[in-house]
Amino acid sequence: MTAAIQDSRFMRALRREPVDRTPIWLMRQAGRYLPEYLATRAEAGDFLTLAGTPEMAAEVTLQPIRRYGFDAAILFSDILILPHEMGLGLGFTPGEGPKFERPLRDPQEIHALPRLDPNEATGYVMDAVRLIRRDLPEDVPLIGFAGSPWTVATYMIEGGSSRDFKLAKKMLLEHPEDADALIRLLADSTADYLLAQVEAGVNAVMVFDSWGGALSPAMFKRFSLAGMQRIVDRVKASAPETPVILFAKGCGGMLESLADTGCQALGVDWTTRLSDARTRVGDRVALQGNLDPVVLTTNPEVVERAVADVLEDFGPGSGHVFNLGHGITPDVPVEHVQVLVDTVRRLSQRRSA
Amino acid sequence: MTAAIQDSRFMRALRREPVDRTPIWLMRQAGRYLPEYLATRAEAGDFLTLAGTPEMAAEVTLQPIRRYGFDAAILFSDILILPHEMGLGLGFTPGEGPKFERPLRDPQEIHALPRLDPNEATGYVMDAVRLIRRDLPEDVPLIGFAGSPWTVATYMIEGGSSRDFKLAKKMLLEHPEDADALIRLLADSTADYLLAQVEAGVNAVMVFDSWGGALSPAMFKRFSLAGMQRIVDRVKASAPETPVILFAKGCGGMLESLADTGCQALGVDWTTRLSDARTRVGDRVALQGNLDPVVLTTNPEVVERAVADVLEDFGPGSGHVFNLGHGITPDVPVEHVQVLVDTVRRLSQRRSA
Repeated sequence: MTAAIQDSRFMRALRREPVDRTPIWLMRQAGRYLPEYLATRAEAGDFLTLAGTPEMAAEVTLQPIRRYGFDAAILFSDILILPHEMGLGLGFTPGEGPKFERPLRDPQEIHALPRLDPNEATGYVMDAVRLIRRDLPEDVPLIGFAGSPWTVATYMIEGGSSRDFKLAKKMLLEHPEDADALIRLLADSTADYLLAQVEAGVNAVMVFDSWGGALSPAMFKRFSLAGMQRIVDRVKASAPETPVILFAKGCGGMLESLADTGCQALGVDWTTRLSDARTRVGDRVALQGNLDPVVLTTNPEVVERAVADVLEDFGPGSGHVFNLGHGITPDVPVEHVQVLVDTVRRLSQRRSA
Repeated sequence: MTAAIQDSRFMRALRREPVDRTPIWLMRQAGRYLPEYLATRAEAGDFLTLAGTPEMAAEVTLQPIRRYGFDAAILFSDILILPHEMGLGLGFTPGEGPKFERPLRDPQEIHALPRLDPNEATGYVMDAVRLIRRDLPEDVPLIGFAGSPWTVATYMIEGGSSRDFKLAKKMLLEHPEDADALIRLLADSTADYLLAQVEAGVNAVMVFDSWGGALSPAMFKRFSLAGMQRIVDRVKASAPETPVILFAKGCGGMLESLADTGCQALGVDWTTRLSDARTRVGDRVALQGNLDPVVLTTNPEVVERAVADVLEDFGPGSGHVFNLGHGITPDVPVEHVQVLVDTVRRLSQRRSA
């Protein structure tokens, strides 16, 4: 990793070192609220072509950096690329979300799943990383990512999105040993995948546990946290310079356990106060978050006030990366994102001055 | 309230007094998993006729008591009856959930909403309560209920169910004073409605805050908790013998604030351990919960083990009402509910012996 990257606001904040102002990037910043994204998306035709064509994935990754100068870029990809390449057959029906052609319903099938070579099965992702790293300003860090084993498993078992995760939970409850094996396999494949991204040029990695909040604490620890722990351990062992950010949405009660994994930062959604999170775990990890994305659909005055609240709630001192508490939504006006970015810069500069 | 009711397991547990075994009832116990419910539902034709015809509402309320001998009955009704009678025009499209014909989109309309006389506008609910109380075994308590002001407001503003509550949150963010007025009006109407239920014969009341978990802590306090506080204050002032149970789903981080309202018990969903809840607030309130309803779709062995886990997690001592962490789902086999009830009785009796 270059000195320019190591010394960037984002990397310094992840190490809880002082910064001139709070770094900011947004989950799903390369997304449908941007007209330039929609243009590239239309050119690609479908989502898998967009994510699977390195030049296009690189282009949409860079677009929000050009427009807003965010303090970090995040690879454009999807958490379901891995199970797709494992053979489940991902498809996107417009308005319906992701669907697997061959969902995992029989626990015996778990033991036949392949462990992928990430450079072979997902070489196009690594090519995208190399292109992005080539074209990104040299002081802007690039974040790689993957889904958490439990979250990826929910889609594999349910065959798509779910409200109650009934089939996935039934697998955990009725076939816990097979489920353990699935989580282990996914954790190992995900660690391989993230380490290949690091090799190709990403500077930090983030693991998204979108559905950990559906589980009881005991099941969260056995099936969600255990998978993330295995990933953190592998990344720390093989790429100790690369910070790991864990984001478990709806898991405010689990922050201590998540910090105990040895990760460098935790994503926090808007249902937990940053000040509360900081009291509980802030001496061990940096915190990333936590504006409710709905705020960006209101008006500039409300955005400014809400940004001030988040910064004030985190309070003085280092270790904060400004972000949303969930991905930005397609209906957000681009001007409101500019207000957000400007406000974070103005208010956090004053704060650190 | 009669001595038989006051001395029932359920009422004793709410007062955190010793019981011979842990009382049990289930959220949505009068529901579609029961063949006898489906028969009455078919006879009624549609949901509003079922909820609006006192004889039918009474019949489905009593059905699960006859079949399982639950330790409490809960009035069969719906949290959207109040806004329906306020003039929003509730309808149920099969497979789509509730829809209001005239959703509340203009903040000015809030100030024109009527405060209802519950005995006039919802006299059929009070008639159902009287019929149930007449036919229910004299030692079985009857629980009345309503939705929390915030939760009811989400349906009024969105016009139905929502995943992200964007319109409702926008109202809170852009028109906070109007939103305060809506919450106050709903809280006052709901308190009137619950007190009329008490007058008609219910022995405890429960307030369901299904969507408090979508809000940030600051917005939860201002818009969800404030409404529930107003209801608790009114019920305590006018019907001090009637316990109030608050259930805010997905609000494990808010249990202390909820207990501070002065309510008698808190519902707890499966994402918070009862032992953790007890450490934090159990010296002030009883706890009700918290089995994940998905467990009931698995098999008897898994049900028995999960029940044992919940009872063990609560631990020794009084103040526990066994329940699910959310409503029972239509796909649960009736035999599994029998296993659940038998297991709670067997294991908790041993525990208290």
